Amino acid sequence: MKKVIFNCLLLLCLGNKADAVEGMWQPQQLPDLEAQFKKSGLQLNPQDLTNLASHSMAAVISLGGCTASFVSPSGLVLTNHHCAYNSIQYNSKASNNLLQKGFLAKTLGAELPASPGSRIYMTVAALNVTDAVNKSVGNNQTGLERYQAITNKKKQLVRQCELDKGYNCEVYDFYGGLEYYLIKRLEIRDVRLVYAPPESIGKFGGDIDNWRWPRHTGDFAFYRAYVDKNGRPADYSPENVPYHPQHYLKLSRAGLKPNDFVMVLGYPGRTNRYRLAEEVEHTFGWYYPTRHKIYVSWIETINQATANNPDAKIKYASRIRGLNNARKNFQGMIDGFARSHLIETKRLVELNLQKWIQSNDQLRNRYQANVANLKALIARQQANEKQNLALGYLGTSDLFSVARRLYRLSKEKQKPDTQREPGYQERDFPQFQESLRRLKRSFDPEVDKAVWLKFLVEYAKLPSNQRIPSFDKIFGLGNKFEAQKVKSQLDAMYQGTSLTDEATRLKWTDADPKTFAASNDPFIKLAVAMFDADMAVEKENQEIEGSMQQLRPVYMEALIAYYRQLRKPIYADANGTLRVTFGRIRGYSPEDGSLYEPFTTLRGITEKSIGVEPFDAPRKQLEFIEKKNYGRYYNRALDSVAVNFLSDLDITGGNSGSPTLNSKGELVGLAFDGIYETIISDWEFTKNASAIHVDITYMLWVMEYLDNAGNLLDEMTIQGK
Amino acid sequence: MKKVIFNCLLLLCLGNKADAVEGMWQPQQLPDLEAQFKKSGLQLNPQDLTNLASHSMAAVISLGGCTASFVSPSGLVLTNHHCAYNSIQYNSKASNNLLQKGFLAKTLGAELPASPGSRIYMTVAALNVTDAVNKSVGNNQTGLERYQAITNKKKQLVRQCELDKGYNCEVYDFYGGLEYYLIKRLEIRDVRLVYAPPESIGKFGGDIDNWRWPRHTGDFAFYRAYVDKNGRPADYSPENVPYHPQHYLKLSRAGLKPNDFVMVLGYPGRTNRYRLAEEVEHTFGWYYPTRHKIYVSWIETINQATANNPDAKIKYASRIRGLNNARKNFQGMIDGFARSHLIETKRLVELNLQKWIQSNDQLRNRYQANVANLKALIARQQANEKQNLALGYLGTSDLFSVARRLYRLSKEKQKPDTQREPGYQERDFPQFQESLRRLKRSFDPEVDKAVWLKFLVEYAKLPSNQRIPSFDKIFGLGNKFEAQKVKSQLDAMYQGTSLTDEATRLKWTDADPKTFAASNDPFIKLAVAMFDADMAVEKENQEIEGSMQQLRPVYMEALIAYYRQLRKPIYADANGTLRVTFGRIRGYSPEDGSLYEPFTTLRGITEKSIGVEPFDAPRKQLEFIEKKNYGRYYNRALDSVAVNFLSDLDITGGNSGSPTLNSKGELVGLAFDGIYETIISDWEFTKNASAIHVDITYMLWVMEYLDNAGNLLDEMTIQGK
Repeated sequence: MKKVIFNCLLLLCLGNKADAVEGMWQPQQLPDLEAQFKKSGLQLNPQDLTNLASHSMAAVISLGGCTASFVSPSGLVLTNHHCAYNSIQYNSKASNNLLQKGFLAKTLGAELPASPGSRIYMTVAALNVTDAVNKSVGNNQTGLERYQAITNKKKQLVRQCELDKGYNCEVYDFYGGLEYYLIKRLEIRDVRLVYAPPESIGKFGGDIDNWRWPRHTGDFAFYRAYVDKNGRPADYSPENVPYHPQHYLKLSRAGLKPNDFVMVLGYPGRTNRYRLAEEVEHTFGWYYPTRHKIYVSWIETINQATANNPDAKIKYASRIRGLNNARKNFQGMIDGFARSHLIETKRLVELNLQKWIQSNDQLRNRYQANVANLKALIARQQANEKQNLALGYLGTSDLFSVARRLYRLSKEKQKPDTQREPGYQERDFPQFQESLRRLKRSFDPEVDKAVWLKFLVEYAKLPSNQRIPSFDKIFGLGNKFEAQKVKSQLDAMYQGTSLTDEATRLKWTDADPKTFAASNDPFIKLAVAMFDADMAVEKENQEIEGSMQQLRPVYMEALIAYYRQLRKPIYADANGTLRVTFGRIRGYSPEDGSLYEPFTTLRGITEKSIGVEPFDAPRKQLEFIEKKNYGRYYNRALDSVAVNFLSDLDITGGNSGSPTLNSKGELVGLAFDGIYETIISDWEFTKNASAIHVDITYMLWVMEYLDNAGNLLDEMTIQGK
Repeated sequence: MKKVIFNCLLLLCLGNKADAVEGMWQPQQLPDLEAQFKKSGLQLNPQDLTNLASHSMAAVISLGGCTASFVSPSGLVLTNHHCAYNSIQYNSKASNNLLQKGFLAKTLGAELPASPGSRIYMTVAALNVTDAVNKSVGNNQTGLERYQAITNKKKQLVRQCELDKGYNCEVYDFYGGLEYYLIKRLEIRDVRLVYAPPESIGKFGGDIDNWRWPRHTGDFAFYRAYVDKNGRPADYSPENVPYHPQHYLKLSRAGLKPNDFVMVLGYPGRTNRYRLAEEVEHTFGWYYPTRHKIYVSWIETINQATANNPDAKIKYASRIRGLNNARKNFQGMIDGFARSHLIETKRLVELNLQKWIQSNDQLRNRYQANVANLKALIARQQANEKQNLALGYLGTSDLFSVARRLYRLSKEKQKPDTQREPGYQERDFPQFQESLRRLKRSFDPEVDKAVWLKFLVEYAKLPSNQRIPSFDKIFGLGNKFEAQKVKSQLDAMYQGTSLTDEATRLKWTDADPKTFAASNDPFIKLAVAMFDADMAVEKENQEIEGSMQQLRPVYMEALIAYYRQLRKPIYADANGTLRVTFGRIRGYSPEDGSLYEPFTTLRGITEKSIGVEPFDAPRKQLEFIEKKNYGRYYNRALDSVAVNFLSDLDITGGNSGSPTLNSKGELVGLAFDGIYETIISDWEFTKNASAIHVDITYMLWVMEYLDNAGNLLDEMTIQGK
C-alpha cells in the first residue's frame, strides 16, 4: 500500500492556492514538490533536501521534544530559550539565578553541563520497515497479541540498528500505522549550556504573551555538543571535546521583508488531522476540558506551595512553564473549536468517504466493515480513558511515580532484555537513571505533597467503581473523604520515605521484587500494592492499542485513496520525525477590522515594559532602544530592528527551536510559537499565518549590544551587510 | 477673568500636530479655530456653527445623557439603539419582546410612547452668567453659605429663564466654576419610539464587544418628537402632532474612506482633564476599584435573581446594561492607568505650574496659598467620600431610595418653592412622578431584595464609625451580622410595604412629613429614621462643595494662564453641554505589530456569528451577506458594506448618538462608543483614534434590505449615489 501514498503528484495535490502551503513533509517527499518550491522562490535544489546527509538537513537536530541546529564548525547549537529552560534552571540557585541573570560562557571551560538526560539527536537514516512489521503479525490474533508482536518486532529492529554504537534507533508509525519507519539518529550525550539571555529577554512577555501576537520574545539560547577525543558520543567528561559537525547553518543578517520565502526544518511533535468525528467530539468535549481543569488546579497548588520558598520556586519553574503552556493550549483548543466547524467538516468528509466506499464493490468489501469496527473500538478506548481518570489523579505525585517506576523496573529485570517493556530495557537505563537524578533539581517534598493532596481530594470524589481498591485500602478511603486524616497519612508517608534521597533512589534500580515487597518505605509499599491494578490497566490499553493497529491503517488507506481523488495534499500527521514546511512571511487579519503585522520591532519592547515580570526588559536594553542604537541590524522599512515575525508555515509543538531558512538556505529565524487563534490547526490546517519566529537580527543585536557575546558571533558564519 | 480664556489664539494653541485634534469646543470658540478647520477640510463656514439656530447646530439635540439629531422635517430623531434602550425595554414584555424582535412603526399611529420621562432638548441659548453668580457670594462666607448663595442664584436665573414656557434652563459650571453659563433649551415632552432594529443587530456583540474594536454594532434607533397642535411642547396626548424642526440633517450614502474629515456635534458628559495628582490617585486607587467591585457583585446578584424569571430579566435589562458598561469603563480606567504615566504627567505639570507661580510676586500672591488650600480641601473631600461608602451600600435598594426621596419631598414642600433643594421644586415634579411610574417596568421586589441583602452584608463589614447608627438600630445590627435574621427582616419589610404599588407611590408625593412619621410602612419608617443622618451628610457635602467653588476657579485661572503660555489647547471639561470636536477617520496601532483598521465590514458579522447572543446576527442578514446583496451601499475599497468606523475625534460618554458629519455637514455616522485602551482619555487626551461610529451606509442597508423601513427612508433626505 505504501506506494499508493506518494504516487499522487503532490504538485497537483497542492492545487494552486495563494494561501499558506499545508503540509509537514517528509524529506523523501520533497522532490515531488519541486515545482511548488520553485514557484515559492526556493533557490536551492529540493532534491538536496531529500538527502539527510546534505547541508541543511544534516545541520537540523532534535533535542527530543524541541528542534535545534548546528551553527558553527565547533558544535555550537542554537535553539529556543524555552527549549534550554530546564538546563538554565538546573544550573540556577536562589543565590545565583541564571534564569534571571542570563548566562554567557566566554570560554569552552566555562560552559555548564546541560540538565541530566539532555541529548542531541542527528537523524542519519529513515528506513521503511512496514513490510517487516506487518509480517510479524499473525492471523486472528487478539489485540494484545498483535500489540506484543508489533512491539517485539520494533524492539528487534531497534536492537539490530543500535548495534552501531552511539546511535539511537526508533520505529515510528506514520498514517496511524499504515507505514513504519526505522529512524536512526546519532545520539550526543554530552551537551553543555553556552549562552542564554536573561528571562527578561528570553521569556519576555512570559505566560501572558505565550501563544499571542504581537510578540517580542528573545526566545533563543545556545548549547554545544561534546564528544570524546575520537569524535564519538560519550557521557559527560572533562576530557570531551567539541563535536565538529559535517554541516552547520550560516546566518543571514541581511534582514527580511513581508512575503519573503521561508522554510522550517524540524521535528514537529503531534498533529491529529486524520481523526474521526467521534474522536474530535471526545477530545474537545471531555479530554481538553478535563485536563484544563486539572492543570489549572495543579498550577494554583504549586504556586501556593512555593510562594514563600524561592528555592522551590526555581525547582518548579520549568514545570509551571510547561503546565501553563499546556493549559493555554487546551484553552486555545476549546476556544478555537467553539469558533470552528471542525465537527461539521469531519462529518461531511466521513459522509462523502462513506459514499465513495459504497460506490463500488471492491471498495465496499475492503472498507465498509472497517469503519464500523473502528468506531466501536474508538468508543471502547474513550470509555477506558474516562475510567482511568483515577490514575491521572494518583500520578500527580512525582515521588509516587518514581516508586512505581522503580518497582516496575525490578519486575521487568526478571525477564530477558528483549522481552522487557520499552522504557525498561538496558538501552533505557542511562536515561532512567538520569531522570532519577534530575529530580533533585525539580522536586520539593512539601510541594509534591500539596499537589498530591489536592488531587487525592478529586480522586476521592470519583464513584467507587472508578477508583483503585488497592489504593483505597491503604488510605482507608471510604465514601467520605476525611481531609485531615489523609493529610496526616501523607505527612507520615513523606516523613517516612527515603526516596527523597538521590542515592537511595538510584540504589533501588538494582533491587529485586522481593526486596521491594519487604520494604517498609511507604511509597514503595504503595507501589507494590498498586502493581496488579496498574498492570491490568496497561493490558487493557495494549489490547485496545493492538486492535487499533489493525483497524486504523485500513481506514487511513481508504481516506488517502479518497483524498487522492480530490487532489488534497497527503502527508503524515506529525510524529516527532524530521519534516519540512515552507511558505512566506506574512501578517494576517485575525478578524475583520484588525490586522496582525508580519513584524514586531524594538518599539514594542519599550511599549510593553512596565518594569514588572514578565514585562521587565533590562534597563540597558530600554536605553539602547531609546537611543536608537540599532547598529547594522537596522531595518529601514520598520525604522527599527525586527524582533519577531509571523509566517504561514505549518508547524506545531516540537518545532520549537527549528531553524527558519530563507530561499538560499541561510538561517534567518527560529520558530518558537504559534498564534492562539490557530492552536486548533493541529486538528485542521488553517490558512492563516500563525507561526511565530524570532528574527535572527534581533538575536544578533542582543548578542552584540546587550550581552557582549562576541566570542559566539565570531564563531558563527554571518552573511549579509 | 473669562475673557482671558479665549483671548488665546486657539489656532496657535492647537499647534500643528498631524495627530488627533484635542478639544471639545464650545460653539462660540469655533471662529477661532477657522484656520484649523479649513486645513482639516471643512467646507462649511465655522462661523455658521457658532450660531445655535443655524443649520447643523440646531438639528443636534440632547436626550439627557445621550445625543441625537433631527433627520426629517417631521421631527424624526436619530440616536443610538442603546440610547433608546429604555424605551424599547419599556414597551417589551416576555410575550412581546421588542428588544429581541425589533420594532418598526409603519405609520404615525403605530409609534409607541417612549419610556416615561423621555425628553428631547434643543439648546437655543447659552448666556454667560459668571458675574451674576459671583456677585451673589458674600465675603468670608462658610462653604455651606457659599454653596447656598450660588445655588439660590442659579435657581433664580433658572426660574426667570423658565418663565418662557416649554423651555428648560440650567446653569452649568465651566472650568470648575471659573465660568457659569445659563443654558436654555426647548424641552419636548412627548417622545415616541419609531424604529429599532432587533438587539441581534442593535446590540450585536453586546457587553463582550462593548468598548472594543473591531466592532460590528448597528447601534441606531429612531424616535419622533411630538408637540401640541400649536407647535408647543406638551405632555403626551393622542392629539399631539409631529414637531417640525427648523433644521434637520441630511444623510449621505456616498461612502467614506480613511482620512476623511469628520466632526461630531453633541453633548459629552464628563471629563476630568484638569484634575490634580491627588485626585487622580484617589480616583484610580480607591474610587474606581471600589465601584468596580460593587458593580461586579451587583450584576452577579441581579443575574442570579432574574435567572428563572424572564419578566424580571427584561425589567433589569437596561440596568444590567448600564452596570456592565460602567464596570467595563472602571476596569478600562484601571487598566489604562496602569499603562499610563498619568500621575507622573500630572506631577510634572503641577511642579512646573508651581515654578511658574513662584516666578513673580503677582502670581505668587494670587495663587500660592490657593494651591495648598485646594489640596487640603481635596483631602477632606476624599476622606468624606470614603466615610460615606456606607450610604452607597444602603442606596442599592430602589425601594428604599424611593422612600427616602418621597420623605425628602414632603420636607422640601414645607418651604417656599424657591428655597427648595434642586430636584424637589415645582419644575421637577413631572420628572419626579415619571420616575416613580417608570419603576413599574424596571423593578422587581425579589431582585431588589436580593441586591439589598447582598450589600447589607458589605455594609455590616464596615467599622462601626463608618456605619449609620439610625439604620443599625432599626436592623439591630451589632458587631456580628446574622444573615438569616436580616433576611427575615427584609422578607417582612418587602411583604409589609405598599410602595411596590404605583398608585401608592404617587399618592405619597402629596403627603406631609407628619403622615410619613405616622406611617407603618417599613420603608417609610426607615426613611424617616435615617433622615437626620442623610441631611448631616448632605450638609457636609455642601460645605465642601461651597469651599471648592471658591478654590477651584482660582486654581483653574492659574492653570489656564500657565497653559496659555505653553500654547496648549484650552477648552472646558465636558459637562453635558453642546460641544464640537473634529478630526479624521483613521485606524491605529494599539500596539507594535498590530493594527486596527478604520472600517469594519459585513464580513465581520458573519465571522463573529455563532448563533448565540450576543453574536446571533439574524439569519436573513447572514443570507444577504452570503449573497453579497450590498445594493447601492457597496463600498468598492472594502468590497463590502462599511459597518462601523474609527476616528480620532475627542468624545466621551454623552456623545452617544451624536451625529458624525462630513466636510459638507452631511450625516455620515453616529458616534456610539470608544476604545477600551483609550477610556482613560477622559483624564488625559490620547492621540490615538478611539471614537467608534456606526457607518450610516450600514444603517441604511439594514433599513432598506432587512427591516423594510422604506417609510422612514422616504421621509429623510439622503444624498449621494
